[in-house]
Order: sequence, then C-alpha cells, then structure tokens
Amino acid sequence: MRDVAIIGIGMNKWGELWGDSLRDIFVQAALPAIRDAGVKKLDSMYIGCMSSGIFTGQEHLASLLADYLGVLPVSATRVESACASGGVALRCGWLDVASGESDIVLVGGVEKMTDVGGDEATYALSTAADMEYEAFNGATFPGLYALIARDHMRRYGTTSEMLAEVAAKNHWHGSKNPNAQFPMEISRQAVLNSVMVADPLHILDCSPITDGAAAVILCPLDMAKDLTDKPIVKISGIGHATDTIQLADRADFCALDAVRIACERAMAKAHKTHADIDLIELHDCFTIAEICVLEAMGFFGRGEAGPATLAGETRHGGRLPVNVSGGLKSKGHPVGATGVAQIYELVTHLRRAAGGRQVQGAICGLAQNMGGTGGSSVVTILEAI
Amino acid sequence: MRDVAIIGIGMNKWGELWGDSLRDIFVQAALPAIRDAGVKKLDSMYIGCMSSGIFTGQEHLASLLADYLGVLPVSATRVESACASGGVALRCGWLDVASGESDIVLVGGVEKMTDVGGDEATYALSTAADMEYEAFNGATFPGLYALIARDHMRRYGTTSEMLAEVAAKNHWHGSKNPNAQFPMEISRQAVLNSVMVADPLHILDCSPITDGAAAVILCPLDMAKDLTDKPIVKISGIGHATDTIQLADRADFCALDAVRIACERAMAKAHKTHADIDLIELHDCFTIAEICVLEAMGFFGRGEAGPATLAGETRHGGRLPVNVSGGLKSKGHPVGATGVAQIYELVTHLRRAAGGRQVQGAICGLAQNMGGTGGSSVVTILEAI
Repeated sequence: MRDVAIIGIGMNKWGELWGDSLRDIFVQAALPAIRDAGVKKLDSMYIGCMSSGIFTGQEHLASLLADYLGVLPVSATRVESACASGGVALRCGWLDVASGESDIVLVGGVEKMTDVGGDEATYALSTAADMEYEAFNGATFPGLYALIARDHMRRYGTTSEMLAEVAAKNHWHGSKNPNAQFPMEISRQAVLNSVMVADPLHILDCSPITDGAAAVILCPLDMAKDLTDKPIVKISGIGHATDTIQLADRADFCALDAVRIACERAMAKAHKTHADIDLIELHDCFTIAEICVLEAMGFFGRGEAGPATLAGETRHGGRLPVNVSGGLKSKGHPVGATGVAQIYELVTHLRRAAGGRQVQGAICGLAQNMGGTGGSSVVTILEAI
Repeated sequence: MRDVAIIGIGMNKWGELWGDSLRDIFVQAALPAIRDAGVKKLDSMYIGCMSSGIFTGQEHLASLLADYLGVLPVSATRVESACASGGVALRCGWLDVASGESDIVLVGGVEKMTDVGGDEATYALSTAADMEYEAFNGATFPGLYALIARDHMRRYGTTSEMLAEVAAKNHWHGSKNPNAQFPMEISRQAVLNSVMVADPLHILDCSPITDGAAAVILCPLDMAKDLTDKPIVKISGIGHATDTIQLADRADFCALDAVRIACERAMAKAHKTHADIDLIELHDCFTIAEICVLEAMGFFGRGEAGPATLAGETRHGGRLPVNVSGGLKSKGHPVGATGVAQIYELVTHLRRAAGGRQVQGAICGLAQNMGGTGGSSVVTILEAI
C-alpha cells in the first residue's frame, strides 16, 4: 500500500443554510479544499452523505456534485453509513490512493437537513436505526441514547452534571471556531435547566440539525512535497468496524464494540498507542456518546470519563483535548459531513494553523466517527510529517 | 496494485418477493456466494443499493446487512450511484483488495422495490434524475429515455421494430435463465402492440420493478488457487466515469459520454480491444439504452446497433452476444443489484457453467452498468485464467 497524505482542506460556515441547496453547500467546501491543495485536476472523488434521498429527494449524488463542481467525467462515488458516512468516504478515498489507482482524490461530506420540518428530519435520522424493529416502534435517537445514558449512570454513577460538562466544554471550544453553528458558551447549569427531551438527556445534551459540508484532498505521500508548501499530514491508519444497528441486540449498551474495534484496528495500522494521541475529535451526537466513546477507545477506564471530564482533563489545555472544534454539539452535525469535518479540524492543528483554538505541540490526532448508536464506526489517525 | 480474482458468486430468483424483506433478499444472494467461494471469513464488504431510504425507510444499510449475514464486526460500506450502485460497489471492493488492505471481500447489490406502490416507486427512481431541474418538473425515466429514442430515430433512422427486437432478443435469452423475473419469450409484434408509456417507448420497451440481490467474492489473484478448485476469473480492468445527470445539459442526447469514457478506461486498464470481448452484459433499462450503449462503447458505429440487432448479431449464437442473461428487460432490474448480477452472469460463462445459455468459448466478458440516463457508468472487463 502507498502511504497517503492530506494536502488540502475546506469547509463552509455551518448552520441553517436556507439560501443554499445541497449542491451549493458541497461546492462551498470542495472549492476551498481544491484551492488549498493547489491541484489542477482530480482523479476521483468520494462523497459521504447519509440521506439526500429522504432529506432532498436526490440520489445519484456523486455525479450531480461532480458536475456542479466542474470536474466531470471524474470517477465519483457516494458512500453511506448513516452519521459515519464521512469517515467511511475517507476510508474509500484512502484505499483508492493507497492502491495506486488514483493520485489526487477529493473526499467530501455533505448534508442538507433543514429543507424538511422537524418531524421529517426525525424520521430521516431514524432510518439509521433498525427501521423494522426500532424506528417502526417509535424509538428515535434521543430515546436510544437516553437508554445508554441511564445504563451508564446506573452502573458507574455517571451524573447529569458530568454530561452537562461535555456540552459546556464543547460549546466553550466552539466559541473559538468561526465555522461553528452555535459558537456561544453555555454553562453547565443552562444544560441542566434546558427542556428534557428523553430523560436524562436535555435538549442541550443533543447535537443540532445542521446544513454543512467539508472536504479534503488526498494524494500519495511521496507526491505531497511536490504539490504543496504547506505542512504535510499523513493518514497513519484507518480502522472501520460494524455492530448491530439495533441497540437491543447488544449484550452491553455502553460498550460500543464497533468503536473499540475500529480504534484497535486504526492504532495497529498506525503503530500508535494511546500515549501518542495529542488531540481527539469524536462523535458527540449526544453528551453521553462522548463519555462512552472515550471509554470504548480505552482512553479512560469504564466509568472514568465522566469524572475526568468534570475535572477538565478533556478541555483545551487539559491532558487530552477532546473536540476542540466544538464537536457535533456546538459546531453542528450535518450527518454525512461530520466525519470529514473531524479530519479538517485535525489537519488544522497538525499544520499549526488553528489560531485561538490551536492545541500546542500537536503531532498526532485521532478522529472517531459513528453511525446510529454505534452500528458502524471509523477511527482515523493522522500525523504531522 | 495487486491483481484481483472473483472466486464466488450468488444471486436469488428475482421477482416481486413480497414474503421477503430487504435483509432477507440480500442474504439469499450473499450466503450462496460465500459457499461458492468456500471462504470462512470476510475482511470487508461493499453493498450497492440505490435507495433503501425511500423504498423501505432504511439507511445505515451495510451494518444492518453485515449483522443479518452474521459477519460483524466486518468493515461494511454501502455505495450509491443510482442504478450503477452495484458496479460502483464492485470498483470499491476491487480497490480494497488491490491496495492490500483486505484479502477476502464480498461485493453485493440489493434493492427491495415492491414494498411501495407504483407512484412511490416512480418517485424513488426519479431521484436518480436531477430533482430540482428534471424530476420536480415532472420528467421521469420513461420520458427521458423517450427523448433519447426520438433523437436517435431522427438522426439515424432507428425504428420501433429495432427497439422491439432488443426486447424480444433479451426475453428469448431470459427464457433460459432460471433466476429471471420474466423468463417468457415475447415477439417483436407483442412489444409493438403493448401499451405506449412514453412515445416511442411501449411498456415492453421498459425494464420492470424488481426485488433481488446478487453477490460476488473477491480475493487477490495469487491467493485464488489456494482458495478454490473452480475456474478462476480475473478482474482485468474497471473504468468509472460521470456525466451531467440532467439530460438537457448534454450537447448530444445519444452520446452517453460517461459510458464511452468508462469503457475506454476499462479497456486501457485491461489492455484489451473490442475484438477481445466474447460477450457483453449491459444496462438495457430501456430498449433504446442497449442501442446507445453499444454505440457509445464503440462496438458499433453511430446508427448501426439497431440494424445489427435486427440482423441477429447480438443474439446468443451471433457475432457478439449481448445480455444473454436476459438483461434488465427480462431478468429484472432491482436497481442496486443489477451491476453485481452482470458480474454473476459473466463469471458463470467464463467458468463454462452457464448451461443452456453458455456462450461457447467465452474467455473475456464485459459488463456495463449505468445510473440515470448515463450520469454515471462503470465498465468492467473479466477474463478466464
């Protein structure tokens, strides 16, 4: 396999982008990524998108976006794995370059979620659960994550205050991110006082509905120096794993086996250990997810991520900064774009270009992207060269 | 790049499978493929599916199918490119093996189309067109292909009888295929007498709505001999290209540039010329498509494929047998599965195992899969070793 580098990144300002269509939003991220890389052509592209079909009535998405980006007749492929679509698209682009088939590859993620009403958006998202056994019977994601949170509280004494601190921390981080949808600080108390959605999860424990896109440009590592003067970031390893998409089929609600296995695979591929990781972008679709993911990946023992969060260990400036972009919680969660935007954030830090939210001395970063309640997960490890 | 072989194939009997859900149908094809290959584990899988979201309310499909197949926590990815989803999934699986990342890879295609009514199915399929500029204004695929047919008739003198012969030929082929949805012979006159859907296309010029799946197992060519005693088939080349998904954006309705370019790329990769190809499975979603695709790929000059069809050149036993499986027209067209089923058919012939429809002496076959009116296309060349 050829080693693969990331030489360009782009994203747009996320939010409720009512003036822009799906194709507009994608191009707002893809063009800056192409400019950032300074490349003149693409050999192929991969687009992560969860449900353009239900959200906007548009399938056949990769061809449409290749056309709108002006890169026809490029090989263009859309990839779907619910909210892990972006991470899985990165894996496909990585294999394309690693195989030797393509040299310059764009990996994008996009979702246009606000063209439908709240009920329809909830329906669209529920298709990431098992439709026949979960969603059809009324289970939606706030309820499913509430089950996980209740189980975690019962077994490990995790508190609502610990969950609220995840939200407060990530909003504090997001307040330094000009692309974030909700870049305002919120207090722990504000989270605890916010309306209850699915006990114990308040509305401020939940990530929002977002329109947005992100894109990165890949090339063989040995070509990167000829293509760009910017600091080069290497994809050291990607791990991808699946689990039952139905929560009730799992022996342990909090274990997130797909996350654990994806992380083990990525670490093995990258020849890294936990101690090598300087910052993490992870899938905090709900505050409890951040706690469970940190534990599943082995950065904290079971039941220890909540107290560590409360102690500030995962804050910017702490021992292990987590979601310094603001995470899904503050930056927003356009589901197909999230996994690619995590890569955008890591590259920014590894290039020492993150400005006010720079993690000092960051050399190695980890991104964790997840579908549903953990039915799929991708973990990617990046390194500054 | 490592050379890649196909060592297992499976599909189910296609039709209106009202007793089986999406996940059942997939497993009915995937398990036979695994048994055929004789492998004990999968390193990864890729699933082509166009719109499980709209047809059945189910996204996050690859994880669900990996679970139902019993192969968790395998890396599992769903790929979408409208009716070319299966072909694009094959390309992703090929790159995974070629890169050295995975050894044993399952590539499947599946679609469950009959759980919704006719209007809903037409809507779901129309999402392969440009929703904002074509489908929203009422254009659906019979109408779009009728525009292509009218243009072809005007410019080249192609007749309704030539189109009808495509259908009659493919049904004659399909009558020998036990997996075909409509395995009955039909006459040219029956096509011409059938109800007009979008002038000049009669209903018997159109492929049907189908439930079905197909699957193949890939491995590195140099491992194939140790894994199977069956004749080994090599993937000699895959070409993938895109075009505008909106027909009105093209300078020439009949040119199908994505098909032409995908074929050129596949031929170059495989080091093959037209004379090397012994049989073709191509995307006859409408009869006119078979004519245009044969011309776009350069097997016939512009305006020559219709007369050649009428002269029997593309029949089983003719100079260049096309769609001896029955094609989309008779075998059926579960859109995400079609591209993988084409590979199933070619492998069957290259193994000399096609029984009554065997193309004698076939060594090299070509599959052409297409999305929408040609907004994306994948061409794959396979060879018996």
